[in-house]
Amino acid sequence: MPKATKKETKKKSKKPLILISNDDGIEAKGLNTLVKEISKFAEVIVAAPHTQQSGQGHALTVSNPIRATEIYKNKKFFGYAVEGTPADCVKLGVKELMKNRKFDLCISGINHGANTAINIIYSGTVSAATEATILGIPSIAVSLGSFTFLDFEPAAKFAAKMAKLVLKKGLPKGTLLNVNLPPVPQNKIKGVLVTKQGKSDWDDFYDKRIDPNKKPYYWLVGDHVLSDKTNDLDHKAIMEGYISITPIHYDLTDYKMLDELSEWNIRK
Amino acid sequence: MPKATKKETKKKSKKPLILISNDDGIEAKGLNTLVKEISKFAEVIVAAPHTQQSGQGHALTVSNPIRATEIYKNKKFFGYAVEGTPADCVKLGVKELMKNRKFDLCISGINHGANTAINIIYSGTVSAATEATILGIPSIAVSLGSFTFLDFEPAAKFAAKMAKLVLKKGLPKGTLLNVNLPPVPQNKIKGVLVTKQGKSDWDDFYDKRIDPNKKPYYWLVGDHVLSDKTNDLDHKAIMEGYISITPIHYDLTDYKMLDELSEWNIRK
Repeated sequence: MPKATKKETKKKSKKPLILISNDDGIEAKGLNTLVKEISKFAEVIVAAPHTQQSGQGHALTVSNPIRATEIYKNKKFFGYAVEGTPADCVKLGVKELMKNRKFDLCISGINHGANTAINIIYSGTVSAATEATILGIPSIAVSLGSFTFLDFEPAAKFAAKMAKLVLKKGLPKGTLLNVNLPPVPQNKIKGVLVTKQGKSDWDDFYDKRIDPNKKPYYWLVGDHVLSDKTNDLDHKAIMEGYISITPIHYDLTDYKMLDELSEWNIRK
Repeated sequence: MPKATKKETKKKSKKPLILISNDDGIEAKGLNTLVKEISKFAEVIVAAPHTQQSGQGHALTVSNPIRATEIYKNKKFFGYAVEGTPADCVKLGVKELMKNRKFDLCISGINHGANTAINIIYSGTVSAATEATILGIPSIAVSLGSFTFLDFEPAAKFAAKMAKLVLKKGLPKGTLLNVNLPPVPQNKIKGVLVTKQGKSDWDDFYDKRIDPNKKPYYWLVGDHVLSDKTNDLDHKAIMEGYISITPIHYDLTDYKMLDELSEWNIRK
């Protein structure tokens, strides 16, 4: 039936095209739960690291070549496993591997662990979403605020809701949404809060060890310490059981400091 | 003469203690020119990557241990070569290797190549300075805006001037200075401008090549394109021959978007 096929094709092409990436790697449960949920209403293509890349920050590979492998799941095209950073995945995916496609949205996640407060600047999950934003694609980073709580379903469902909203309303140029879910089951989520990046930091140190050749090496270990007090800050919000949405951008200018610095009257 | 020695020690301890890092590696000319200039008025200790780490962004090594080697130059202690990212160097240096010392300032650089506009978010040089800021140390990132112009002297002299100013005036908590020098000799520098992070971006693409085993690999190549028009933006300022100073911070919240997002009325 050629007619039906044509109609089917037309209908399919109307679906939004969504790029999904992460920093936990293409096999991560968080990413796969997200793909399943988003595929209910969109065409999804994945471009994600072939292995775990947490703590990569916003790195781009420039001194080495990058490789990418086409991945199929259940005999269907799933996307690309990229031997690079999260930002590499998005940039290579959009600018080269799928340069003939036009993505309507990018979702990065679902990360295993919160990307709140100071963690945002170290986050590979956020960096993938940021790279998509730089490339002009509206973008959302989604993280689940726990290393032990493993139910990604509520986060995937909320990501789908946010995806539909952003597809409808759009985002300002250069702005993305950083979404964090509390580590609780769906029925324990208290609500949704629009938040600011908090100041909570790590209490960490280096564990010095001596190798069999008597040479030292250092492991970074520590805990995230909640120092913020109010629910309008991202980490505090999820610790109180709320979903946190923070609009973020990559203009790092400290505007408050501009005037003060001008008064320093610096000569060359 | 024990008395003289004591006096000397006392005098020495009054010198400010300055940490110097970078992303081009401990052997880079930019770092060594900077160390020489800053050593004229301060005690300097280096903690820098053992090899080039450009484009590392704000990465911290968490899944692997880090090693560090004590480096001596002309039989004098120079600092540590760290097998890690620029942020690793600063964090390991401050929190472990020199945990008994109190740094008055950190300078990261002098980077070979501008760290302006979009480059800031990919910059290892800026990330080292940011890490110091997070650790409570006032910090300055210094870059020379060219890959070909190789005279780091004007940048080193200006870094020394800024270091003294920041030691005197301090910086607000969480704010650092991102300094870029124009790629011109000292006598061609037009002046100093306090600037904002510009929007200039890269015009880049992936160069796809096929290896001898018939498998593809991709190199990122491109040029920075100056799209900004006014001298109050960092990249334009240095292209016009000015030294650019941008106060930056790591609060990524897009405050303008907070209200709009609250009106979206998002339910869980």
